[in-house]
Amino acid sequence: MLGVIWGGPFVAILHRFNLGKQIRAELMDSRHVQKIGTPTMGGIMIILPAIAVTLALNISRIVEAGEGRSILLPIIVLIGFALLGVIDDWEGIQTSRGEVGEGLSGKLKFALQILLALSASSAISYFEFSYANSVHLPFIGAEIPLPPLLFIAISTFIIVATSNATNFTDGLDGLAGIISASAFGAYGVIAFLQEQIYMVELCFVIVGACFAFLWYNAYPAQLFMGDTGSLALGATLGTVAVMTGEWLLLPIIAIVPVMEILSVILQVASAKLSRRFYGVDIRPFRRTPIHHHFELGGWSETQIVQRFWLIGILSAFVGVALALL
Amino acid sequence: MLGVIWGGPFVAILHRFNLGKQIRAELMDSRHVQKIGTPTMGGIMIILPAIAVTLALNISRIVEAGEGRSILLPIIVLIGFALLGVIDDWEGIQTSRGEVGEGLSGKLKFALQILLALSASSAISYFEFSYANSVHLPFIGAEIPLPPLLFIAISTFIIVATSNATNFTDGLDGLAGIISASAFGAYGVIAFLQEQIYMVELCFVIVGACFAFLWYNAYPAQLFMGDTGSLALGATLGTVAVMTGEWLLLPIIAIVPVMEILSVILQVASAKLSRRFYGVDIRPFRRTPIHHHFELGGWSETQIVQRFWLIGILSAFVGVALALL
Repeated sequence: MLGVIWGGPFVAILHRFNLGKQIRAELMDSRHVQKIGTPTMGGIMIILPAIAVTLALNISRIVEAGEGRSILLPIIVLIGFALLGVIDDWEGIQTSRGEVGEGLSGKLKFALQILLALSASSAISYFEFSYANSVHLPFIGAEIPLPPLLFIAISTFIIVATSNATNFTDGLDGLAGIISASAFGAYGVIAFLQEQIYMVELCFVIVGACFAFLWYNAYPAQLFMGDTGSLALGATLGTVAVMTGEWLLLPIIAIVPVMEILSVILQVASAKLSRRFYGVDIRPFRRTPIHHHFELGGWSETQIVQRFWLIGILSAFVGVALALL
Repeated sequence: MLGVIWGGPFVAILHRFNLGKQIRAELMDSRHVQKIGTPTMGGIMIILPAIAVTLALNISRIVEAGEGRSILLPIIVLIGFALLGVIDDWEGIQTSRGEVGEGLSGKLKFALQILLALSASSAISYFEFSYANSVHLPFIGAEIPLPPLLFIAISTFIIVATSNATNFTDGLDGLAGIISASAFGAYGVIAFLQEQIYMVELCFVIVGACFAFLWYNAYPAQLFMGDTGSLALGATLGTVAVMTGEWLLLPIIAIVPVMEILSVILQVASAKLSRRFYGVDIRPFRRTPIHHHFELGGWSETQIVQRFWLIGILSAFVGVALALL
């Protein structure tokens, strides 16, 4: 509710400072042209309240009793990836204004993502939080402890991959917001079943913040979350998955981001390999990330978002059910 | 998933038989004109699978062990109100074809609704199902048993009111479907907390069926649920609320339908009273049901649906929380 009240002035401020969205060159032929100028960096609207409420709920417990320190880790990841995203979004805005792009190169950005994820994973491993450092196997019902180095490698991969997958998901009004809210809701229920009450709070605070953002992001969107939102939400989702020990369920609970990033990887790999070995470009999708494939296939933007979400929420139900096995 | 697979041919059949939607005369000036001809009676797509799956899950238990007979009651309500809705929708289609409307008059329809609700309420009272025949008071935490006649009166009112409220909610693509799914989800969780496992199954089967419908009802809608869907879903929701003894939470969990029907009542009452006493028409809303008020205020159809749903899902969370108190 705070987010909804606060959102109106926030959109006005973004407009005032001309923090408008630029779209990628290859989308210039499509309906996305009309989105030029819509403010981006709306992720701030999700991240600031999420941090504020989580700290307000936990700070006295942490300082006085030393309890619930584990919740600081996803908060640090949230802030770190949000800052990376702000640089990304800012660069896009600068370029569009004809100013010299002083942003970071793609490789440096990726290196910083890995560095952040590696630090977070090492901290999770070092502090030996309950449920982290092991993995739950559904059906077998066992918790398998992982050696520290293996855990750190897996955890780093998951955080970076989920961050970029959510970034690819963010391309249609409401899509990344509702998909993130559903995934955090599912992990919130899983954390509840594990009685990790701090994690439950964090997850549902993020769900609420996403809802406030969705109020303004409803089609036609008044603002976008930008990389500020998508990189931060994705990385935090990966961190939560690792810290609940239920990251094997992440490809199910976050099925839409996984499909989005896989479509990009498949498209690029197929084009490269077919060009090298057959001399022709074979591309399985009309355009990637995969939501553009359906857009070119004739689905409306709102149909894609609603249908992807229906797939996502059903998968989230399945994921929670598997956590019980 | 069955609904989604089955939905494509179903839409084609409705088109083939020309079962197109007609819109009310006062909406002819608006964007709703483009919806003429979209098939209605899509509620069949929700109701048939919901009945089939619920019976398949329960029939052997009921026949062999005599257990779970209570679940037949909401199923009978679902069928009864769906038939009333089919007559309603069919009448609309006939009128539009220039044929003589042989449908039922408004008063007769209302009388049949009350008759159906009264029969169902009497049966609930007679069989003394657990949780029915009493009401849970949140905060105080007490279950107050109700005398049979009072219970039957309240229950009849709730079933008829919820049915008509959901009918008023059905006016924008995706609205009635997502609002119903959220409300049934909330009562499914409440029934789970009460360990009424048959009711949990029924609620979530309806949620799933609504999801399948929403696949095709996403903006721009390929079919509408019609009165077939909205009257049946609303009446069944009212029945579930009564049978869980948590009907005091219904105005919270179903806040959107309640607002919709209240806006209509307020508008009519205000116009009548102001005309009688002041000689002028004072109408608080631009147009009712209230979603048209926001539409005329400049919100897009998709913004109204998403924002109403965000209000609805938050209220549903609050409702479930109150059930625990």
